[in-house]
Amino acid sequence: MAYHLLQHDRTRAGILAESLEQALQAVRHCQRCNTFSENELCERCASARRDPSLLCIVETPVDMNMMEQSQAYNGLYYVLMGRLSPLDGIGPRELKLDRLLARASDGVVREVILATNYTNEGEATAHYISELLHGRGIGVSRIARGVPVGGELEYVDSGTLAQAVRERRSLD
Amino acid sequence: MAYHLLQHDRTRAGILAESLEQALQAVRHCQRCNTFSENELCERCASARRDPSLLCIVETPVDMNMMEQSQAYNGLYYVLMGRLSPLDGIGPRELKLDRLLARASDGVVREVILATNYTNEGEATAHYISELLHGRGIGVSRIARGVPVGGELEYVDSGTLAQAVRERRSLD
Repeated sequence: MAYHLLQHDRTRAGILAESLEQALQAVRHCQRCNTFSENELCERCASARRDPSLLCIVETPVDMNMMEQSQAYNGLYYVLMGRLSPLDGIGPRELKLDRLLARASDGVVREVILATNYTNEGEATAHYISELLHGRGIGVSRIARGVPVGGELEYVDSGTLAQAVRERRSLD
Repeated sequence: MAYHLLQHDRTRAGILAESLEQALQAVRHCQRCNTFSENELCERCASARRDPSLLCIVETPVDMNMMEQSQAYNGLYYVLMGRLSPLDGIGPRELKLDRLLARASDGVVREVILATNYTNEGEATAHYISELLHGRGIGVSRIARGVPVGGELEYVDSGTLAQAVRERRSLD
């Protein structure tokens, strides 16, 4: 991209450089949920129409956007900006999990929903956080794992099907 | 396939014809679970090592094989050999749901696990069967719906994510 801009489009390269510079100066982290924001509090944390008793924990701002697009959630968020990954040297300290703990213990949050990815690192992160919150009087839940909507058993992998059977839901 | 066999491989076409003829004569439906079987009872229904208190309902013999491959289930099955599909003229009578009802009411089955697909027809079929079994003292459950194993929120469709949030599981 850099080569293309330098060779074919030097004007736009200048505009891009300027925009990036502005973004670097303007965009910081929301003081409550840690996502990118131009203000001290992001749009969602500042909104009065959201349920402050629900706190959904996601790995990245992109994941938060996905949750928003699903239109199934109207609580607040906490964005980890990463995941536990010992091989990459990312532990609880690097993720600043003490900040998350302080956020979840504000007395208003009644349920923490762990929405980290269903990868190994995401699962480890969810497990660690659930242990961290255990015994603090805050409910902890994990987004469901199973067959995707529209999914046919014939095309679902064995691991997913096994989980779907183990975590079956009573209809009574 | 027919053109290829007739033009290039008439010997094997004969073998295929014979095998198909044999299969047509030998393969019938298991008297208990309705899947394909060469005997009155299929291998699984005849096995003493399976838990007869669990009955898993699937649409096709292929789905049953998928469940077996997942190695997460050790009960018995009932194969619908289809799904409710009013547009194709397949209703409860065509699916012989009264046979399923008789099978589930044998006094040994304690839980029926609905493992039809998460398509519209599969969902309708699961709903119909759960209503049918309601109030008969048999537990009814549905395999979990949600994010597949290894799934990242960024690449999961909105509908699946919405279900995963709605059907989140408490970790307390």
